[in-house]
Amino acid sequence: MNFALIGLGRVGRVHAANIASHPQANLHTIADPRAPQLEELARRYGSSLTTEPEAVFADPGVDAVVISSPTTTHIDYLQAAAQSGKAALCEKPMGIDIDRVERCLRLLEDHPIPVMIGFHRRHDPSYAALRASVRAGAIGQLEQVMVHVRDPAPPTLEYVRVSGGVFRDSVIHYFDLLRWLTGEDPVAVSAFGSCLIDPGIGLEGDYDTTLVNLRLPSGALCHIASSRRSVEGADARIEVFGSEGVLRVANAPINLLEPPVAGIRYIGFPTRFEEAFRNELNSFIEAVSTGSPPVPGPEDGRRSLIIADAATSSALNGNAVDIRY
Amino acid sequence: MNFALIGLGRVGRVHAANIASHPQANLHTIADPRAPQLEELARRYGSSLTTEPEAVFADPGVDAVVISSPTTTHIDYLQAAAQSGKAALCEKPMGIDIDRVERCLRLLEDHPIPVMIGFHRRHDPSYAALRASVRAGAIGQLEQVMVHVRDPAPPTLEYVRVSGGVFRDSVIHYFDLLRWLTGEDPVAVSAFGSCLIDPGIGLEGDYDTTLVNLRLPSGALCHIASSRRSVEGADARIEVFGSEGVLRVANAPINLLEPPVAGIRYIGFPTRFEEAFRNELNSFIEAVSTGSPPVPGPEDGRRSLIIADAATSSALNGNAVDIRY
Amino acid sequence: MNFALIGLGRVGRVHAANIASHPQANLHTIADPRAPQLEELARRYGSSLTTEPEAVFADPGVDAVVISSPTTTHIDYLQAAAQSGKAALCEKPMGIDIDRVERCLRLLEDHPIPVMIGFHRRHDPSYAALRASVRAGAIGQLEQVMVHVRDPAPPTLEYVRVSGGVFRDSVIHYFDLLRWLTGEDPVAVSAFGSCLIDPGIGLEGDYDTTLVNLRLPSGALCHIASSRRSVEGADARIEVFGSEGVLRVANAPINLLEPPVAGIRYIGFPTRFEEAFRNELNSFIEAVSTGSPPVPGPEDGRRSLIIADAATSSALNGNAVDIRY
Amino acid sequence: MNFALIGLGRVGRVHAANIASHPQANLHTIADPRAPQLEELARRYGSSLTTEPEAVFADPGVDAVVISSPTTTHIDYLQAAAQSGKAALCEKPMGIDIDRVERCLRLLEDHPIPVMIGFHRRHDPSYAALRASVRAGAIGQLEQVMVHVRDPAPPTLEYVRVSGGVFRDSVIHYFDLLRWLTGEDPVAVSAFGSCLIDPGIGLEGDYDTTLVNLRLPSGALCHIASSRRSVEGADARIEVFGSEGVLRVANAPINLLEPPVAGIRYIGFPTRFEEAFRNELNSFIEAVSTGSPPVPGPEDGRRSLIIADAATSSALNGNAVDIRY
Repeated sequence: MNFALIGLGRVGRVHAANIASHPQANLHTIADPRAPQLEELARRYGSSLTTEPEAVFADPGVDAVVISSPTTTHIDYLQAAAQSGKAALCEKPMGIDIDRVERCLRLLEDHPIPVMIGFHRRHDPSYAALRASVRAGAIGQLEQVMVHVRDPAPPTLEYVRVSGGVFRDSVIHYFDLLRWLTGEDPVAVSAFGSCLIDPGIGLEGDYDTTLVNLRLPSGALCHIASSRRSVEGADARIEVFGSEGVLRVANAPINLLEPPVAGIRYIGFPTRFEEAFRNELNSFIEAVSTGSPPVPGPEDGRRSLIIADAATSSALNGNAVDIRY
Repeated sequence: MNFALIGLGRVGRVHAANIASHPQANLHTIADPRAPQLEELARRYGSSLTTEPEAVFADPGVDAVVISSPTTTHIDYLQAAAQSGKAALCEKPMGIDIDRVERCLRLLEDHPIPVMIGFHRRHDPSYAALRASVRAGAIGQLEQVMVHVRDPAPPTLEYVRVSGGVFRDSVIHYFDLLRWLTGEDPVAVSAFGSCLIDPGIGLEGDYDTTLVNLRLPSGALCHIASSRRSVEGADARIEVFGSEGVLRVANAPINLLEPPVAGIRYIGFPTRFEEAFRNELNSFIEAVSTGSPPVPGPEDGRRSLIIADAATSSALNGNAVDIRY
Repeated sequence: MNFALIGLGRVGRVHAANIASHPQANLHTIADPRAPQLEELARRYGSSLTTEPEAVFADPGVDAVVISSPTTTHIDYLQAAAQSGKAALCEKPMGIDIDRVERCLRLLEDHPIPVMIGFHRRHDPSYAALRASVRAGAIGQLEQVMVHVRDPAPPTLEYVRVSGGVFRDSVIHYFDLLRWLTGEDPVAVSAFGSCLIDPGIGLEGDYDTTLVNLRLPSGALCHIASSRRSVEGADARIEVFGSEGVLRVANAPINLLEPPVAGIRYIGFPTRFEEAFRNELNSFIEAVSTGSPPVPGPEDGRRSLIIADAATSSALNGNAVDIRY
Repeated sequence: MNFALIGLGRVGRVHAANIASHPQANLHTIADPRAPQLEELARRYGSSLTTEPEAVFADPGVDAVVISSPTTTHIDYLQAAAQSGKAALCEKPMGIDIDRVERCLRLLEDHPIPVMIGFHRRHDPSYAALRASVRAGAIGQLEQVMVHVRDPAPPTLEYVRVSGGVFRDSVIHYFDLLRWLTGEDPVAVSAFGSCLIDPGIGLEGDYDTTLVNLRLPSGALCHIASSRRSVEGADARIEVFGSEGVLRVANAPINLLEPPVAGIRYIGFPTRFEEAFRNELNSFIEAVSTGSPPVPGPEDGRRSLIIADAATSSALNGNAVDIRY
């Protein structure tokens, strides 16, 4: 499968390496405005380079695109993929404007292509083992889920400005994960947000510290705590509490020495989810190859964004918000 | 110091044993409607027995009362203590009706006696070590606190009926603990409640599963998850997250075997907080002896109840509630 | 049951408190050369005081003796107990001279009394849970046992001088525990000893740091590491490794704060084995009351000493020593 | 650097993948008697294939050899490397016959080439962090080291037969690691061995379950427990105990789910030491490139074998054995 990769930021580079080493994939084209700086990378992977993402949609040699460009451009490229009939693996969030996302979904109905939304954490082996155990009844009836999503260090303000806010940019990973883990769509959300780490984030109208409560249709309750800074390192813990037991996914230590030497204790997200990114690509290639719809798909992207919108609104006005899909 | 103990339920028996073994205390009188069944206990402790709690307030031989009768009677006995000039250690919550609690505080202004409210968890050595570390700057600026309070098994409906609801009865422990730990009074609360464990609890208009978000004046955010049933055993964990580190208080395992044999993993609350109850009594006796006001006092009881009221209201109507003291 | 307690050192005081609070026991007499300093203790427990241990054997009011005097006197008092027909709970080791111990066993054949040897660790709930799990087949066939026995701080040289050496004084706890845990008597031992902590210990011909390998008749192998100093606090871990699994008994933390504040992390032996000492006394009283032989008994004392003698000899000459009982 | 890889067993395949992906290395030739089955592998790496290892020494296009053939052939190929002037990374053990190893060292004096012995565990980041902390004084004076080396499953008897026995084949990893960690060469060893897992191993005169005590010149004592079967998965823990603290390297869990789902809990050695193998290759290439002697070198190989010989002898005759180098 010949891939064009649009956007070579931190996550884009992870995709590049995974495509290059996948036995059924070929990194045909790299499209990025900084192309001149990417020549060595392109040479290593034997890829052609372009500064014009639009070009890849016109290239009949390209079978599939990976969209890891800045968030605000996702929808445009996804639509271009639909119109040019190329399969697409689109980074999360699918978009930050629900109207545009819904228009895109309608376009995809008319121009059906295989689309996977890049919620890579569904593909993490530890989360997958958690979900399998929960599904197998290991904790009985699910009653509470508690999640931590804390980044090692805050993003740049330039990034924050176009991110759609912390709920659409970061917490959205776990809105999706909770839907996948529990098999339920939350019906109500209540969120608190603070700006405690970087005042610039507050000036952008965003939060760096948030708490989210979610209610599921079954009555089970979920909680997500997020922070843009964690001196211990990336925090991605989940606790699932049920009528007959409790399961947890722990953080991954940077090494096995105990007690840990002072400093960062947990590995960063790219390393923590290295295998998840590989599994994601593999799942995408397998779905496209076999003609089955990639999962998570655009409807998953839409629903997560609706939850993120509701959380954003709740944090702003203080009230719980009912969620309708 | 001659103690009268009013109410010999589960917690009352803990107080009885502690008073009996404290070198400066004497369990002078046990007052309980079930007095005839308590004869052996009274004999062991050399205490007199009465079914009339009022009698202890008239007895000049009684220096102090411990009020561990049903919740709805706390305020009456506390007022009787004030009017008879006896020191009082009153179980939490101080009351479940804020108007009555505030009237009681006014009465205490006119009839000052030493009063301690039985938030025993402040006296737990692990929580105290946590607070000391936080105060010493171990985590830098405090940003998030996450608490679990999960009981091994739900109370009887008879108990639920007069408990004031889960926020005033159980979660209130951690409303107080958060005030003590952070030195701040929460300014807003948002709560979700469900009834997943015992439908009877729902019929009483109460919840068995709740999530509470709290905002502190500093912007720091706190979360408390509660459940009336925990098959792993009593859950009383706290995680404190700050700009420079993280500290946690873990649960206490029933024994040191790893992995734990199937069944309950953590010791129950009476054992978990055995030392806290002893320290509480000791702190009360020392305060009364030295003439310094016991801590936590009635104003702490009032403030925790105000938070519990706000959480109850938020769970009911779904909105965040501003808290004013 | 009226007890006389001989020797009020650190362990003796633990026995005193346990006897005083046991519903079927009475601390009739305290016998210790330092009796004048023990008046307050005797008053608290309502005990008579004597500086003459011999006196307790002549006192018809004494039913049982607890021997917690210096190690070298154990055998004399045990023989006096036999000759006076009093039940005896004798601290470990039973003696440090195998000939005297064997003579004592012959005397006990002619003058049978209930005798328990104070290997209190058999009565620890965590070790008991470990043994129950092993016996229930949780680890399949037992293949390896690893033990740590590390004291927080080295004893005084005065104590070391009359202790019989580290194998007879300290490691012997786990010689007994291994016999009880595995149901086997070791057939060979190889020991290494060093003096790394207190040169005075070396000058006494003793070790403060030792490793012991033991072979069981089944071929299973056991290892015990000991140290007279552990800055983390008392170390009493066991790992049992078998064909189908592994079980461990962990150390007991001083509190539940994580990470632990710098300094001692694990509670000391008297606290760690508080419940074991209480269970031991209870088991002794129950055995004496019901007429069944206390366990562990004198033969257990003899066998542990034989292992300790063999370990001492191996450490001295470097060779493995076959053990015959 | 053009590599020839001799022997494509389990470890050989790890080397193949690492050479192929190393930016400064090229897998020029694969030499293995099973060459016909390795065609796909050779094609993937663009390597030539031969069934004749001797051929690689004659090939001027080969700069370096990796010797991962059966243990008994290591010395022959290492000598061929010396005689043909090719750098060599030789799997452990260097040999199983000390006389041949010493003859080889003399040959290397006359024909100096860069030689690294494949004790890859020195290159593990967790062990390296442990060593750095110990060297930095984190535990004060070193007093005890305890090691576990337990394989998930026993090797085939065919493998056992030519392995040199468990001490030379498996435990030798930690003989080397202890030398590297402590900076000391053990002066005495005492070993116990049993055959509990596979009677066939016993019939070969080998053990599947062993305990080894080692004495260092400083008096510090080390212990290594080994087993050929561990149902929990690969066990490679180290505990370092000193006058001022304790450090441990834990096992690596197969995933982050807690409690682990029944079955194997820890990842196998190839995964556990994946990074170590990569670091090892990198260190070898860097040493060869810069002209500095690779570490660990042949003298390290010789010394570890001497310790393994002494342990083998001690297990056989039961006595402690003094070690001279």
